[in-house]
Formats: sequence, structure tokens, C-alpha cells
Amino acid sequence: MTERPLSISQIYAKGKENLKKMEVKRWFPPDSNTDASAQTNRKYLDSLFFVPKFLDPVEVDTSFTIFSVKLKTPVFCSPISRHNFMPDTELTEIARGVRDAGALMMLGIGGSKELQSAIDTGAPVVKMVKPYRRTELIYEKVRDAESRGCVAVGMDIDHFYGLLVGDKVEKTELFGPQNTDELKQLISQTKLPFIIKGVLSVSDAEKAVELGASAIVVSNHGRGAIDFTVPSMIALPRIVDSADDKLTVLVDTGFKTGNDVLKALAFGAKAVGFASSMLLAFAADGSAGVERLINLITAELQRTMAATGCPNLAAIKRSIISQAPPLG
Amino acid sequence: MTERPLSISQIYAKGKENLKKMEVKRWFPPDSNTDASAQTNRKYLDSLFFVPKFLDPVEVDTSFTIFSVKLKTPVFCSPISRHNFMPDTELTEIARGVRDAGALMMLGIGGSKELQSAIDTGAPVVKMVKPYRRTELIYEKVRDAESRGCVAVGMDIDHFYGLLVGDKVEKTELFGPQNTDELKQLISQTKLPFIIKGVLSVSDAEKAVELGASAIVVSNHGRGAIDFTVPSMIALPRIVDSADDKLTVLVDTGFKTGNDVLKALAFGAKAVGFASSMLLAFAADGSAGVERLINLITAELQRTMAATGCPNLAAIKRSIISQAPPLG
Amino acid sequence: MTERPLSISQIYAKGKENLKKMEVKRWFPPDSNTDASAQTNRKYLDSLFFVPKFLDPVEVDTSFTIFSVKLKTPVFCSPISRHNFMPDTELTEIARGVRDAGALMMLGIGGSKELQSAIDTGAPVVKMVKPYRRTELIYEKVRDAESRGCVAVGMDIDHFYGLLVGDKVEKTELFGPQNTDELKQLISQTKLPFIIKGVLSVSDAEKAVELGASAIVVSNHGRGAIDFTVPSMIALPRIVDSADDKLTVLVDTGFKTGNDVLKALAFGAKAVGFASSMLLAFAADGSAGVERLINLITAELQRTMAATGCPNLAAIKRSIISQAPPLG
Amino acid sequence: MTERPLSISQIYAKGKENLKKMEVKRWFPPDSNTDASAQTNRKYLDSLFFVPKFLDPVEVDTSFTIFSVKLKTPVFCSPISRHNFMPDTELTEIARGVRDAGALMMLGIGGSKELQSAIDTGAPVVKMVKPYRRTELIYEKVRDAESRGCVAVGMDIDHFYGLLVGDKVEKTELFGPQNTDELKQLISQTKLPFIIKGVLSVSDAEKAVELGASAIVVSNHGRGAIDFTVPSMIALPRIVDSADDKLTVLVDTGFKTGNDVLKALAFGAKAVGFASSMLLAFAADGSAGVERLINLITAELQRTMAATGCPNLAAIKRSIISQAPPLG
Repeated sequence: MTERPLSISQIYAKGKENLKKMEVKRWFPPDSNTDASAQTNRKYLDSLFFVPKFLDPVEVDTSFTIFSVKLKTPVFCSPISRHNFMPDTELTEIARGVRDAGALMMLGIGGSKELQSAIDTGAPVVKMVKPYRRTELIYEKVRDAESRGCVAVGMDIDHFYGLLVGDKVEKTELFGPQNTDELKQLISQTKLPFIIKGVLSVSDAEKAVELGASAIVVSNHGRGAIDFTVPSMIALPRIVDSADDKLTVLVDTGFKTGNDVLKALAFGAKAVGFASSMLLAFAADGSAGVERLINLITAELQRTMAATGCPNLAAIKRSIISQAPPLG
Repeated sequence: MTERPLSISQIYAKGKENLKKMEVKRWFPPDSNTDASAQTNRKYLDSLFFVPKFLDPVEVDTSFTIFSVKLKTPVFCSPISRHNFMPDTELTEIARGVRDAGALMMLGIGGSKELQSAIDTGAPVVKMVKPYRRTELIYEKVRDAESRGCVAVGMDIDHFYGLLVGDKVEKTELFGPQNTDELKQLISQTKLPFIIKGVLSVSDAEKAVELGASAIVVSNHGRGAIDFTVPSMIALPRIVDSADDKLTVLVDTGFKTGNDVLKALAFGAKAVGFASSMLLAFAADGSAGVERLINLITAELQRTMAATGCPNLAAIKRSIISQAPPLG
Repeated sequence: MTERPLSISQIYAKGKENLKKMEVKRWFPPDSNTDASAQTNRKYLDSLFFVPKFLDPVEVDTSFTIFSVKLKTPVFCSPISRHNFMPDTELTEIARGVRDAGALMMLGIGGSKELQSAIDTGAPVVKMVKPYRRTELIYEKVRDAESRGCVAVGMDIDHFYGLLVGDKVEKTELFGPQNTDELKQLISQTKLPFIIKGVLSVSDAEKAVELGASAIVVSNHGRGAIDFTVPSMIALPRIVDSADDKLTVLVDTGFKTGNDVLKALAFGAKAVGFASSMLLAFAADGSAGVERLINLITAELQRTMAATGCPNLAAIKRSIISQAPPLG
Repeated sequence: MTERPLSISQIYAKGKENLKKMEVKRWFPPDSNTDASAQTNRKYLDSLFFVPKFLDPVEVDTSFTIFSVKLKTPVFCSPISRHNFMPDTELTEIARGVRDAGALMMLGIGGSKELQSAIDTGAPVVKMVKPYRRTELIYEKVRDAESRGCVAVGMDIDHFYGLLVGDKVEKTELFGPQNTDELKQLISQTKLPFIIKGVLSVSDAEKAVELGASAIVVSNHGRGAIDFTVPSMIALPRIVDSADDKLTVLVDTGFKTGNDVLKALAFGAKAVGFASSMLLAFAADGSAGVERLINLITAELQRTMAATGCPNLAAIKRSIISQAPPLG
């Protein structure tokens, strides 16, 4: 029984396979690099170099306060949900590692029990709610987060376009675009700081200010949502220039190291999120792996802050960065 | 019996082979990348990213009217001719898939019977005529298209330079450059909208206006005609700026996805053609494959239009695109 | 018996090999790409695209007159010397192919007999003399060329820096830098047009004018002489802008196709030389291979001239070229 | 017994390995290219081409005087320490090769005995002292260098951030940031010229002037110290523009050939250091390998200086360089 191809690239692959069976040799134009957003983001990050001030060495403090919580490091675990191939305890263990490293934990889709377990580790927890079509469900999730002691709540705004399953985007009818009037009301009614995640344009950043959000996460779900949206590091500085004084700008997507974090901070982000890296750290060594990863990221951040003359996060300026010229 | 090398690259290959037999080791400068036009086109497409407006979600309508026909999607099957390795029914089945998806069908070289079969599927059909040296033949083909109910007719203007067979361009004496006075007369005498295909310069676009064409297709036959002509996506915006208000600008060559389509629409094209992709879709799953491909392309187009705040095709502006900086 | 490493790259290779034997794993910074000049030249050529004028088709004539000889095509065989792995008849056979294609033949180092054989084929022949330290030898070679009926003479000006043998530059004491006063005298005393080959800067082009040269060849011997000199296609337009009205500008190095030729003509060269390509063509099919190569190059040149609206060589302008934007 | 991952990249590798064992297939964003600084440096060097003046040939003298020593070539052995996989005599033999080639020797960490052996070869020796936390130890090392006849002393300023061991940066508590007042005092108290090594910014260059240094080395320890600091060739010209008239600017990191040296001299450096290349040359052929490498580098430098019309080091200008345009 042959399955019918489900996605654009599967159609092309299947067509080529069938032509090959017919021994047809033909040239086809190159396929789209649907991974371009992540690759360009990485290439851009890796084209940014630090201008050191070794002769002005400083003692470095990476602590900062966000949502009234003092953290040791401007690193957060981006909203993740339990991966079904991982043990039940995954999120709790990651939260434990995050807590031990003095960072911030964000949770994505999931139930109250999971949320409570994460909070019980002592980590400061943010609950990110999906853009459900049923507005009551959103209110319910937000109220649950408030009552259990989350430090903030928020919403993904790009996720209703679907989720990448294998090669195909699957749209769930559970999620949908949000009416901005209703969103404004929701934000005004919760006592917690509200975060809008998935901002990639000045337009959305300004809208987030209008809606009363306390923070935004410049974030790119990549192929899973809308392919070929602006890479988050390229979107970041313009958004910071436009909205920095009105709300807190966070960023995630594709970050891997402490130097990556410093580049984002230099471009104006207040903290940097890691999602798939947290999964890898958990897979490597459980909660200890998560803690170790954040500690290593923080140590590298600290070392390079010292080398670029930045005693604290507030002292980090765009001028510590020099971009390599484009080379053929 | 040794065959003599027929093309430039065959001469170089044969020379290297013979020197190798003589055990001569020698450095030679790199050969020309005769695929540069298609590769640069793809690289350029993949360097264009979307600036989303997730907080201004819109309902999207991708329908539009061209040649007095209302279509569901700004996608057309570029003029194709039957591939001799495919069943007789190839073009009819592709037309059926195109019809089911609500798109437009263009036919290239071929006879009246084939044309009639395609029209009989109910798909709106455009007949593209080759630049025959015998002007009467052109008139005959155009009149046949008129009488059978095509929605438009047109002509390839780049194809008389030859056709790539393997590694060698074969020139057919059937085709030749067109006298522009005669072309003007032909266009004035047909009651159907006339399309000029193969425009890659402002000069040719302005000439097309002068000749009375209703539409042009910005299109690049690649190595098959003239190698190293400007990639169509790079040629497109300048042509749109110059001729957009005087005729309808279409584009094809190397497009693969719905996001590719949106990039071309943002640069001012009114619809986007797919040729080799249609062959692959047909090879993958017959007319169902063609329909599915166009539907997937349209769904992706719709999703990204929604995410960039474009309720309909007329609302698509160049500003939804952000080009990645050149990176070494 | 171990051989001592002779060149820089051999030292690095040998050192790495020895460290590997000692099981030392160590990171070393990347080696210089000593092929950068040829690769950049090719990349630059392949980044140039043609702006077609399909609606202004023209009849094309590629003939032109140089050194009072009318040629069918602006192609010449760059000065080559007999390769010792080839039959004695190599240069004569190449000259025959060049003659049959209506092109120009240049000869490099070699004796009177070889020169006479090439002239006897009926090909128009240019004799390029090496920069011998013994000035009398230069006069002797020039007078020999005059008396046998060469159409021009000239001199390589970059070759005394050595010749690449395997990985090592070998300097011959036979050649040396030329006293420009003596060179001026030599040029004034020969009745033949004098060509200076190896010009890569405006400074040398202006000097060539001063010395009374009739033509220059913008040319890059690559690693064989001075590594990392400006690629000839990048050097060409500036030199043309400075010296075009005072002498004839020719170009060679790394050209492979008829489209390459048109790009050089568009940048202002009057003819384009092929050296290693001629060797390959000869290795592929003797004098017939050489003729066929030049004919194919000329046919491609003609086709693209027709497509870009250039009826003859004088009509070729820089505006037929569009450079692709730099893409990461 | 499983070892716990020690570094960021080890965590990612281990996580991927464990997920693979669980047969989880998942896409992860690309990892940081932690070798970007060295690669960008090389790419930048290889994008610089020479503008030859073959018609103005000159006799070349590469000698110059630094720290009151006349050298045959503007090449130095960057401060190296004995590699534990090499024989005891390593540094002495390298110094011997350096002496035979008429270059300058710099020594890094190591004892008096080693220093004396190097000086005993007759090579001019510079002692570079590490940034010890114990100031007396620094004074001791400097006085030892003075008394044994070093031609200059200096200090690494970037090395206290750690040393790359395998994949992990190990910080030694022996080294630390230097108090600039104490550094100023040290510099004023030694009678030898003082060199500050590891400068990559105008800020540090200006500080070095303030502290009374005679020379700086623009230098990048790469991943071993702070990853992603500006590549030294990219940092060089700006530093030269700012500090050239106040102290001597040297440069090292990633240089491999004589043409590389000329590019650095054209950007304003007075001499160029080689470290890993010296190790390779020693591994290839002992002190003879070192001498041969420097001689080959010098010969290439000489050849290209002749070809670009530079009779001596002072005549080398930035205008002999032409940068290739960025090409996709």
C-alpha cells in the first residue's frame, strides 16, 4: 500500500523517485532551503565578533531582576512542553536544573499538575498559554497560573498557524488568531506581568505595547509555524530600538553558547531563552546536565563580559560588537 | 568508434580524460558554473524573509481574476509540452489537476487535439505559440486557440536560440526572431489577451507595452536558451516598477513553494508559474498530485499572507519582505 | 632516503604528518588558499548576468580587425609553448585549428622552427618574447619574428618572478626585470605592433602607453608567477577606463566559454585569450578539437550577442551586464 | 564508568547521542562555529589581492631594525612554550632556525634555563611574561630577562581567561587581570622595551600607549582565551590608524605565507609572528625546517614586494592591496 505524499517536498521527492524508476534523467531547479531562517540566524550570530578591552579588566556580575525575581543569569528555559519520548519527570527535572543555576523557567502547553511540580522545585516559573480559540480556556489557564504562584504569564502568538510534524505542518483547530480587544482585556485583568512571545516585527512590538504587555520574546518558531520569517537575531535590534523603553525585550531561537547570549544582550535583549539546548542537556545528564549547561553558558558570558569591559548587564552596549565584512 | 565531443564542456572533459591517460597532472582553472542563473535565483529567493504581523491576524482570500477568469489561486502551470517519456494523457491530466485546484493552465508546443483535451477538462487554458519563422503558422495556431476557447494566447520570445539537449544547445530552424512590426499586427488582430513570455529586462517590458501585449511573463529558460541571463526574481522588481501599470506582470522559473509565490507577489508579480514542479507532481501522483501540489502551495501562501497581515492579493506589499544581510 | 620539504606548503604537510605519527592532536589555523585568484576570477565571472533584449533581435557579426588582420572572432590562443608531454607537432596543430576558426595565434617561448611551422599554417601569429636578461637575445627574437612575418610581437612582463614547478616556484636566471628605457627603445625600433602582457594595474597600463606599446594583455599567471595578484576580470574595467583610448586592451586567464568572452568584451576588452583550454581542446581532438572549441565559443558569443541586442563587437556595452547582489 | 560532559559542545554531543539511542529523530538548530575567528581571518586574508607594478621593478631589501636589533626579515617566532610532546631541545632548536634566518625569537612561559639556551644560540630573544597574579613573580621574570640579555620583554594580556584543553577552557588561578597602575610602574622600571600582546581594539592600543609600552602585538588567542574576538587582520588597520605613530605595531595569529606577511605590512604592521607554523616547521625538519620556512616566507615576501614596486619595508603602502568584492 503506497502512501500518498503529504507535503510539498514529499511530492517533489516522490516525483523524482518515480522518474528515476523510468530512467528519466532531467535537470530540476534547486529546492527551497526551508531551513534558511535557522541557518541565516546562525551565520549572522557567527559573523559578530567581540571588541575586547583586556586592559580594562572588570569584576563581572551577571545577576538581574525580572518579574520581581532576582536571577543569577540572564538565561531562561524557553517555554517547553513534555516530549513524549521523555520520562514523566522531564519538566520537573529541567525546572530543578534551572533553579540550581539561578535561571528562569518557562512552561508551554501542559496541565496544572506539571505546572505545580515545576513550581515546587523552587524555580521561578512563567506559564505561557497557547492561543486557544476558546477564550474561557485562556482565562482558566491564566487564573491557574496566578493562583499557583507563577511569576508571569504570557501567550505564544505565532503558534496557531500549525506545528511541523515530520515534513508537514499540522494545523490544530484548538488554536486560532486572537482578537486584540479580548487580548487587551485579558492582559488588563491578570495581576501578573504578561509576556507576548513570537514577536518578529516592529509592528507587533508596538502592538504589544498598546495591549499592555510587560515583555515580549523575539522568537521564531521556524518551519513549525511560518517558514522564512525573519531570523530572531536579525529582527532583534530594530525591535529594541522601537520598544525597549516601553517593555522588556527577551529573545530566543537558535542560541547555543554564552557568547551567543552576550551578542543578544549587546543588541538589547534583557535575557535569552534556550529550548532545544535544554532538551539536549536533559538528555545528556538529567537535571545536572541542565544546571551544568546554564552554568557553562553563564561562565562563558562572564568571561567575555570581563574581556569586553562590562561589569554588569546594564553596561553591555552594542559597541562591544564588530561585524565581519561580507566575504565571497 | 569514438564520438567527437559536441559541446564546450565535453571538449574540456575529453581533454582532461586524455591527459589523465597520459598521466599528465596539471592544474586547470575552474570551469564556468553554467547553472549559476538557477542557483543565484534560488539563493536570492532564500535570502528573502517575511516580516510577520501576528497581532494583526486577517482572514485571507487568494482568489483573483485574470483574462476575465476568476481563479482560486495566483498559480499557473507554465507552458509545458508533452514529455515523450510520459503517457499520452500527461497534459490532459495535468490540466485536470490544475482545474481542480482552481488555477490556470498554459500549454506550449503541441497540436490542436492536445489543446482541445486540456480545454475539455474545464481548466482555463492559455496557448503559448513558439516563434515560428513561418508567420502563417503563428496565425494558424493563434486562430485555433481563439476558436477552441482559450482564455489568452501568447508567445515565447527567447526560445529560438535553441534548446538544451544533454550538454549541447540545438538550434531548430523552425523558430526564429520575430519582426516586431509583424508581431504588433498579430497582437492587434487577435481578440484574445496576448502574453509575451521570456521578458528579463525593462527594455523588453517596454517593448511589450508598445506591441500591445496584455501581459508578460518574466521568465528565464536557463541554459536551454541563453545561459547566464538575469535570474527572474532579480529581474522582476525593476520590470514591475517600469511596466506594472501598463500590463499584467507574471513570473516563473525555479519557484517551488507557497512562500516562493508570496515573495514574487510581494515583488509585484500577479501570478507565479510552475513547470518542472508540475512534472514532478504528475510523476508523483498523476492529476491528484498536481491538484495536491497547487493546494499545498496555496495553503502555504494563505498561511504566510495571514501571518504578514495581507487579507488579499492586492494587499501584498514589498514591505512584508526583509532581505538578509550578505554574510561571508 | 627522506626528501626535505621544498615549499611552504610541503613544510606544513610534512610537519602535520610527523605530528600525526607522534599521535599529537592539535588544531592548526587554516592554510592559505593559494588558488584564490583563479577561484575569485571564476566566481566574479559567474556573478555577471546578461540583460537580454529578445524583442530587438539583431544579426550578429563577430569579425574584427587587429594588427591589420581581419579575424572571424575576438578569440586568441594565448602565448603557449610546447608541452613536453605532447607530440612535436602540438603548436603547429593548434595553430592550424586556430586558423581554421579564424582566430589569432600567439606563441610563447620556443625556437624559429616552431614559429615558422605555425606561420606556415596560414594562421596570423604573434610572437611573445620572454623578458631575457640578455637584451641582445630579445632583439634577436624580435627581428626573427619580424622577418618571418608575425603580425605583432610582445613581451611577458610578469614571468621573471619564476615558474611554478609542482608546489615550488623556480626562478630562472635567464629572465629578469626589464630596464624601461631599453624596453622603450626596443618598442620604437620594431616595425611590428608591440604587446605588453601581464598588466594588472592602471599604473602598468599607463606605463605601457608611455613605452609606446600598441596593445596590452590583462593577464594573471597565478601561482606560477606572483600569487594573489588581482584576478584579471576584476582588474580589467579600471584598466580599460584608464587606457582604452590609447592602446588595444586584450585579456586572458581563466576564460572558458563564449559567455565568458562576452563578459570581458562588455568590460572593454577587444579580444580574449585561451591557453589551458586550447591544451584541453588539442588533447581532446587535435587541431579539429581546437577549431571546434573556438567555433563553439564563437557560436555562444554570437547567440548571446543576438540576445542582448549587439549586432557587432563595437556595439557591446557594459550595460548588457547585471551583477548579482552578494548573497550569504 | 560514564564521564560527565565537561563543555557546552560535549553536552550537546552527549544529548544527541542519547536521543539517538532512544531513536528520537529531531531537528536541532545549527551549533555555533567556534572556529569562526580563525576562519574569518583566513577568508579575509585570502580576499586581499596585490596590485602589481611589473613595469617598475625594484631591488628589494627586507631588513629592518626593531628593539635596536637589525633583522633580515620582518618575521618573528611568536611567543611559544615547549610542547610536552616535543624533545627538551625544541625551543633552542627553533631559536637556532630563527637566528639562521635572521628573524626574531619570542619565548612564552618557561624557566631561566630555557631562556638562556635560546639566547645562547645568538638569536635576538624577547621574553613574554604571563599575567601572574603575584606581581613579584612578574618583576622576577622581567629582571631575569634583562640580566640575561633579552632585547625586549612583554606581557600577554588576554591569557588569564584560560586555556583551551580539548573542548574546555581551563582557568588557571596563577594568572589574573593586571592592575594598570602596577603595569605602568613595571613598564617604567624596566630598561628594556616593553611589548603588550593581545591587543585587538583601539581602546587597548591607546591604553598601551598610556602605559608606556614600546610595542603591541595585535593577536588573537582564539578559542583558547576568549572565543569570537575580532580576527587580528580585521582589527589591525584601525589600530594602526590610531596608534602607529606612538608605538610599534606587530601582529600575529593565523599567518602562513610570505604573501600573508606582505598583506599585514600593507595594513601597517611592522613585523608578523608565526607560532603554530614554527611548530610545524620544527616537526618537519628541526631547526633546518624553521630556517627554511622563514627563508621561504621571506623569499615570497621579497618577490611580491618587487612585483608591487616596494624597494623596502617603509615603501609598503595600503594601496598595493585591492579587496575582492563580496560574491554570493
